[in-house]
Amino acid sequence: MFSVVTKNPWPVPEPLLAPDVHPALAATARAASRAYQEARHLHTRAELRAEVADGADGTPTMRVDAIVEAAIAEAATNAGANLLSEETGFVDNGSAATLVVDPVDGSANAAAGVPLSCFAGALVLDTRPVEALTVWFDTGRAWSAKAGQPTPFRTSGRTELRGASICAMRPKRGTEDAWLRLANAVDRIRVLSTTCLETMLVAEGSVDAFADPGSDTHRLMDLIAALVTVPAAGGALLDLHGRPLTFDLDLTRRWSGVAAATEALADDLITTVLG
Amino acid sequence: MFSVVTKNPWPVPEPLLAPDVHPALAATARAASRAYQEARHLHTRAELRAEVADGADGTPTMRVDAIVEAAIAEAATNAGANLLSEETGFVDNGSAATLVVDPVDGSANAAAGVPLSCFAGALVLDTRPVEALTVWFDTGRAWSAKAGQPTPFRTSGRTELRGASICAMRPKRGTEDAWLRLANAVDRIRVLSTTCLETMLVAEGSVDAFADPGSDTHRLMDLIAALVTVPAAGGALLDLHGRPLTFDLDLTRRWSGVAAATEALADDLITTVLG
Repeated sequence: MFSVVTKNPWPVPEPLLAPDVHPALAATARAASRAYQEARHLHTRAELRAEVADGADGTPTMRVDAIVEAAIAEAATNAGANLLSEETGFVDNGSAATLVVDPVDGSANAAAGVPLSCFAGALVLDTRPVEALTVWFDTGRAWSAKAGQPTPFRTSGRTELRGASICAMRPKRGTEDAWLRLANAVDRIRVLSTTCLETMLVAEGSVDAFADPGSDTHRLMDLIAALVTVPAAGGALLDLHGRPLTFDLDLTRRWSGVAAATEALADDLITTVLG
Repeated sequence: MFSVVTKNPWPVPEPLLAPDVHPALAATARAASRAYQEARHLHTRAELRAEVADGADGTPTMRVDAIVEAAIAEAATNAGANLLSEETGFVDNGSAATLVVDPVDGSANAAAGVPLSCFAGALVLDTRPVEALTVWFDTGRAWSAKAGQPTPFRTSGRTELRGASICAMRPKRGTEDAWLRLANAVDRIRVLSTTCLETMLVAEGSVDAFADPGSDTHRLMDLIAALVTVPAAGGALLDLHGRPLTFDLDLTRRWSGVAAATEALADDLITTVLG
C-alpha cells in the first residue's frame, strides 16, 4: 500500500494533436507521453527524481528525463531525423532535419507529481526552426505552429505590464530584486516551474507574459518551441539581453527567455527587470 | 473569429468522483463543472473576468463566480442542504447540513483560462465539517475525504523545509520579506494562485507544503476542504498565528492558511515565515 501511494496515480492521456502536425514531431510527442505514463506507473516519486547521469547540457539527469528521452530517441531514429536533446546531446541520423527536444520540461514537477510538465519540440531544417509542438502531459493539450503562419489561438494583445497577469521563473539568489520589481509591477504573478507550458499560456492568451528575470537558466530546447509558436500567435519571444536565439549544437549556451503578448509588453517587461 | 479566439476552447470534463462521495457534495461539484464549461463556451475571457456584484465576503464577484455559484445554489437546494458560499452568503434551506463551498477557487485563473482552478466544498453537520470534496475543473481530478478517516492518498511525510518543494501565495505588499525567506529556505517554490488545488497537491504528496506567508487572504471556504482532507492524508492544516479555523457564518473572517505534510514541517514553515 505504501509503495502505491508514493506513486502518482493519475493517467497521462494521448496527446490531442492537430492533423497537420509533422509526423516526426507527432511520433516523438506520442512516444514521450506513453513513456511518461509508463514511468509514473512503474516508479515512485523518489525513483523518478533520482539523478541517474549527467546530461549533455551540463545538468544532472533525473530518471524521469532519461526514460522519456530514450523513447524519444527511438522515435526520432525511426522517423529518420537527427535529434538534439538535453541529456544525450546530438544524435546524427544523417538527415537535414533535426528534432530539438525538451523531453520533459518541468522535470521536478514531473517527478514529484505536480501536474505541470510537458513535451516541447521543434523541427529544424539545417539551422532553421520550421515547426513546433508542445504537449502538456497531464491533459494531452497540444499547441502546434509552423514558422511564419498564424495560429488559430492568439495572445492577449496586452501592451503594458500595469494590469498584466504573468508567469515567471522563481526568484534565485541574485534575481530576487528583479523578481520583486516584476511582481509589484503586475496585477498577478504565478510560478508554474515549466517554461514550455508557461510560454504556451502566453501564446493562447491565458497569461500576458512569461519571464526569467535574469537567471540565464534556459537552453535552446527550453525556448525553441516558443520561438516558433509565440510569434505565430501574435506575440514576441526575446532574450532579456537581446542575444539572438539561434540553433547551436553547444548545449552549454544559456538565455533569459521572455515571452510576451506583444513587442511593447516585452519591452516594458525587460525594462522593469533590468531596473 | 476574433471573439472565438478570446474564449477558452478547452473542455471541462465531468468530475472523477469516488463512489462514496456524499450525494449533496457530488451534485454541487457536478453542477459547478457543467456551469463552468458552459460559461467558458458562452463568454470571452473579458466577460468572465467582469465584476458583476459585490460578494457576501466583501470582495467583488466576477461573472465566472456568479454563474457557477448560481448552479451550485440550485443543486444545494435540490439536495435539501443549506449553503454557505462566498458570493451569496448563507442560504438557509432548514437543514442541519450545510454545504460550505468555494464555487470557483482561483477565479482569476478560471476567467483568464489558466487551467488551475477548482470547486471546493465541505459538508458541515451543525458546526462540524464531516466530509470534503475538491475537483480540479480542467482535468476532473477529485480528492475526497471524510473527517478522521484515512484517505488512500498520503502526504509526502517530509518534516523540514530544507529540501522541500512548496507552493505559496504570491507575495503582496508587506509580505515580500516573509515570502523571500520562505523561497530561500526551500528547494523549490511555486505560485499556482489556487489555494484549494495547491492544498490537495500537499494532501496527495506532490508538494510538501502550501502557505499564505502572512497576507490573511483566506476565508472559511478557501480552507475548509483542506481542513478535512489534509489531516486525513497524514498532514496538518494550521493558521500562521494559531487561530482556530471554525465554522462561522461571518464571511469577513480571514486566516493565513498553512498546509503541510507533517506537523513538524508546518512548525518549521511558520517559524520561517514569522522570522
